[in-house]
Amino acid sequence: MNLSESQMKEIADERDQQSLTRRNTVSELEDLMFSPIPVLDHGFIRVIDYMGSDSSVVQAARVSYGKGTRRVSDDRNLIKYLLRHSHTTPFEMAEIKLHVKLPLFVARQWIRHRTANVNEYSARYSILDNEFYLPDAAHLAAQSDVNRQGRGETLNEDETNEVLELLRRDANHAYSSYLSLLNQDELGNKLDLKKTGIARELARMNISLNFYTQWYWKVDMHNFMHFLRLRADSHAQYEIRAYADVMLSIFKAWAPWSYEAFLEYRLNSVNLSQTSVEVVRRLIAGEPVSFETSRLSRREWDELALTFNLKKD
Amino acid sequence: MNLSESQMKEIADERDQQSLTRRNTVSELEDLMFSPIPVLDHGFIRVIDYMGSDSSVVQAARVSYGKGTRRVSDDRNLIKYLLRHSHTTPFEMAEIKLHVKLPLFVARQWIRHRTANVNEYSARYSILDNEFYLPDAAHLAAQSDVNRQGRGETLNEDETNEVLELLRRDANHAYSSYLSLLNQDELGNKLDLKKTGIARELARMNISLNFYTQWYWKVDMHNFMHFLRLRADSHAQYEIRAYADVMLSIFKAWAPWSYEAFLEYRLNSVNLSQTSVEVVRRLIAGEPVSFETSRLSRREWDELALTFNLKKD
Amino acid sequence: MNLSESQMKEIADERDQQSLTRRNTVSELEDLMFSPIPVLDHGFIRVIDYMGSDSSVVQAARVSYGKGTRRVSDDRNLIKYLLRHSHTTPFEMAEIKLHVKLPLFVARQWIRHRTANVNEYSARYSILDNEFYLPDAAHLAAQSDVNRQGRGETLNEDETNEVLELLRRDANHAYSSYLSLLNQDELGNKLDLKKTGIARELARMNISLNFYTQWYWKVDMHNFMHFLRLRADSHAQYEIRAYADVMLSIFKAWAPWSYEAFLEYRLNSVNLSQTSVEVVRRLIAGEPVSFETSRLSRREWDELALTFNLKKD
Amino acid sequence: MNLSESQMKEIADERDQQSLTRRNTVSELEDLMFSPIPVLDHGFIRVIDYMGSDSSVVQAARVSYGKGTRRVSDDRNLIKYLLRHSHTTPFEMAEIKLHVKLPLFVARQWIRHRTANVNEYSARYSILDNEFYLPDAAHLAAQSDVNRQGRGETLNEDETNEVLELLRRDANHAYSSYLSLLNQDELGNKLDLKKTGIARELARMNISLNFYTQWYWKVDMHNFMHFLRLRADSHAQYEIRAYADVMLSIFKAWAPWSYEAFLEYRLNSVNLSQTSVEVVRRLIAGEPVSFETSRLSRREWDELALTFNLKKD
Repeated sequence: MNLSESQMKEIADERDQQSLTRRNTVSELEDLMFSPIPVLDHGFIRVIDYMGSDSSVVQAARVSYGKGTRRVSDDRNLIKYLLRHSHTTPFEMAEIKLHVKLPLFVARQWIRHRTANVNEYSARYSILDNEFYLPDAAHLAAQSDVNRQGRGETLNEDETNEVLELLRRDANHAYSSYLSLLNQDELGNKLDLKKTGIARELARMNISLNFYTQWYWKVDMHNFMHFLRLRADSHAQYEIRAYADVMLSIFKAWAPWSYEAFLEYRLNSVNLSQTSVEVVRRLIAGEPVSFETSRLSRREWDELALTFNLKKD
Repeated sequence: MNLSESQMKEIADERDQQSLTRRNTVSELEDLMFSPIPVLDHGFIRVIDYMGSDSSVVQAARVSYGKGTRRVSDDRNLIKYLLRHSHTTPFEMAEIKLHVKLPLFVARQWIRHRTANVNEYSARYSILDNEFYLPDAAHLAAQSDVNRQGRGETLNEDETNEVLELLRRDANHAYSSYLSLLNQDELGNKLDLKKTGIARELARMNISLNFYTQWYWKVDMHNFMHFLRLRADSHAQYEIRAYADVMLSIFKAWAPWSYEAFLEYRLNSVNLSQTSVEVVRRLIAGEPVSFETSRLSRREWDELALTFNLKKD
Repeated sequence: MNLSESQMKEIADERDQQSLTRRNTVSELEDLMFSPIPVLDHGFIRVIDYMGSDSSVVQAARVSYGKGTRRVSDDRNLIKYLLRHSHTTPFEMAEIKLHVKLPLFVARQWIRHRTANVNEYSARYSILDNEFYLPDAAHLAAQSDVNRQGRGETLNEDETNEVLELLRRDANHAYSSYLSLLNQDELGNKLDLKKTGIARELARMNISLNFYTQWYWKVDMHNFMHFLRLRADSHAQYEIRAYADVMLSIFKAWAPWSYEAFLEYRLNSVNLSQTSVEVVRRLIAGEPVSFETSRLSRREWDELALTFNLKKD
Repeated sequence: MNLSESQMKEIADERDQQSLTRRNTVSELEDLMFSPIPVLDHGFIRVIDYMGSDSSVVQAARVSYGKGTRRVSDDRNLIKYLLRHSHTTPFEMAEIKLHVKLPLFVARQWIRHRTANVNEYSARYSILDNEFYLPDAAHLAAQSDVNRQGRGETLNEDETNEVLELLRRDANHAYSSYLSLLNQDELGNKLDLKKTGIARELARMNISLNFYTQWYWKVDMHNFMHFLRLRADSHAQYEIRAYADVMLSIFKAWAPWSYEAFLEYRLNSVNLSQTSVEVVRRLIAGEPVSFETSRLSRREWDELALTFNLKKD
């Protein structure tokens, strides 16, 4: 993540401006505001704005006049109770807005979360920067044999180098062609005075999916959690998970009790199917259960065995 | 609108608590925060929280690092430009949260606006207050002859008194039966020690639609404007329009440039059908156009005549 | 549920009209079409239209040209796999449209499901019928002591009769006042020639929440399941559960494999919190765990004990 | 658009399968079903499924038992009335499902329409085809001078040829690298037995935005019209407009009265700002109005002049 001096100055200026508000304020989140948190090689997440916190969840659940007079322990338990029983509307009462810089192929997954507000940098209006994603060697992996949408073994050093070289060369080439198509250099000067170049909205089609874009993304806490449950999950593609991991740390600063309840009842919880409940019931009763007598599919049995440390059969 | 002393104290306490924030702050809206603005006879709207303002719209439209360095006039014109061209996503970047007390029949219209977050006072958990809506004499009107969903002439004094007396008596009776069904008085004491009463979730079915409920309602500026365009319109039922009118004044304090653009391009704009455009073109060219030669329906012609001060034919 | 002869004739006519289509057709659901299925004392659900079925889920998941050439068992397992892994978008590819007649207090719960399309009978345009809900004696219950939003013991016969009598009398009284306010009888004739009556949009405010309304409600299969998971649950109020139960039977006729997967992975599944997973792991390993050593709240422990037949301590 | 023989056979088979249904059927739309309608050089739209039509809009607006007994002219006028007064919920009662093949940069614009259901071909699961978009010479244009997001003059023949050659070469190169990264040829055979290749979810990042993807897209008629109003507009990028134009013809086959009302009150209507209404009023009254006395911005004045054939000043 490279910020220019003028960008760093702008961020410092934003952080310096403080004003008085009657609104609920979260000092841990204020500390994070505006500063970019690096993700991947050139990406970042910045907290731009927020509204509410744990207290908004409690307030909405109580629909009371004031902030409530109950003991702190009650509020914390109320939040747990709400999440445990899928009373999710009070969590919609808090919002957060992020400025995110991310590769296009990650943006294409991210945008599928429809209950959010987005304003993306437009390559119809403006020229894209020459910034693209190159994976770490540690994340360059072969197609998984067992998971049709995942990665398997990492590559050996030689193949890693070849792959990275190819990705770098192709991206640089695509960008150079992009400028040719625009008939401009990076400073916006015409390359060839006799040519016109094509419109930005057309030239961008030559850009590949590892290039970075950026957007403002605003979401309520309920949908923020929904995003995290799917994207901080081990089945999510590594690159979007890297963003979700940073968002988890932001969540903790923003609303620590909701965060705690989210880990307990969503992210680290396990959904047991009706048949699995029956299997667990028998196991607890001391009855021996094998894959064959479980009525589960092979894959479900294996997952159950993993979750509860069953002996593999 | 009657607030108890303890409620007024709570509100004063809320208003007294101020803290420093790095977030965008709108002093005109801060002035309104928490204080109930009366609507109808017992209703109110209170501003509970907000996020962003005109500057968030501009920031999202520019997707820039900072708050923008352009001249003020540019931001104001950018907002106009966005609304004029239906670039509505930047307006989703600001949010407002209101605490609203409103009659059930108004709540039933309001809730049809789906892109918003709501937490309503629950009559499954808590006992309803004996507060119901009685219209002003000025708003007690007969069914309209020309508009199947509107009001016509107001009532004479005798009939007005009769109607109000009937509404008051029935509401008081319904509430008294509600308490009987619960087997409780208003303080929560059992009415008859030998009876059990029925569950709150059942007893509430005897309550009529003029009783007040309350909720927290949170919405982004785009959907706030959409609500106002439909509900501050002269075709909206008077009772919900009374809320929309208060919300217009809140809008003005919150985001004056968006408010101004909203009046110009939405609330007070006119959508001309393809055929009407042709009629207006001919009228401007000095060609005489009558209903018969307009190819408009009678109703559309009348509306056009009204909009442009045409001579009635 | 009382249908007039002309209504029954209209329904028979609708059922008689058949035409050829290239669309996916589900004969079990066609059999149900248009016929009202009774719910509560005057309510019903009618299947009005649908689009797609299990095959649409499979088709969307495969994004293939054709209907797929794989074996039947594959499709069934694919649907299970999708639901188990929360790949819910393919379930959005099927839709169903219902005509529902339901009490107002049920409608107020129902409408909170925002991702659906609704057109409700309008009491601004039309006059309401004198139809209201009276619970069965079996469902007239006292407030629950343990659950702040539920029912406890049913009432004895005397109190039951009193309650029903009060509800019936009040509803009839409210309706009679409604007609007085409109200055109309049920046939639409003026009651008093010297009075004007008030507008329908005003008069309806005297109607109580047990009166019936009706609407067309359209939803995709994903949100249909979400509705059922919350409303066919034992914590839902009995009256809305009665509708959910009928919808479960419609679901089975519409998309039997999705229905089966829904029961297995949603309706009858159990979400184990992170702490509960640890408790179950210890229990399976044969370790004695009590409430005190479980780190669960009392309520969570009791639920776990119930789910897995643990001995109460 | 190149379909293989087996694809054409599948489509013919789909079209051949007909069954009886009680549902509303639209023969003009049935005629279109499954057959791909070409868009751009390799794209298409296929109608896969639908639910309802004009009659569903009318039915929902009337919330009646049957299909309505009124005269045909009433239904047509009711639809006009609904759209003219922004009563849009009845239009949500009809749905259509399309199979669309489109370039990635078009897909990125399209997906911003959030109120729709989408299942996209996944390049995590499957290997992309070597199909990319090359503009017609007629659509290869320079950046517009007056419109920061549009096109201006088309290119001369030499530059056109250069641009197309560059785009073709780069796309072929990107695809060839994509296969190298996967270590596969187009038939799925390993290219180099000593290499592993990288996972599909990684390799796809080298693909450029002119490559084609495909998806199933389902939407209700209200949101279908909203899409068309924005994307069939002259300000929309040509490539997405090409899809919108085909969708307009599908709309006409599907629901001719709604289509007609949409043209009249949405697509070809003009929204006059409050200030413009005043200007038009003066013009109709015969008063001379110039830009200087109009209180409009330059751009708004020019648009008004264009709409109503005013003499340029």
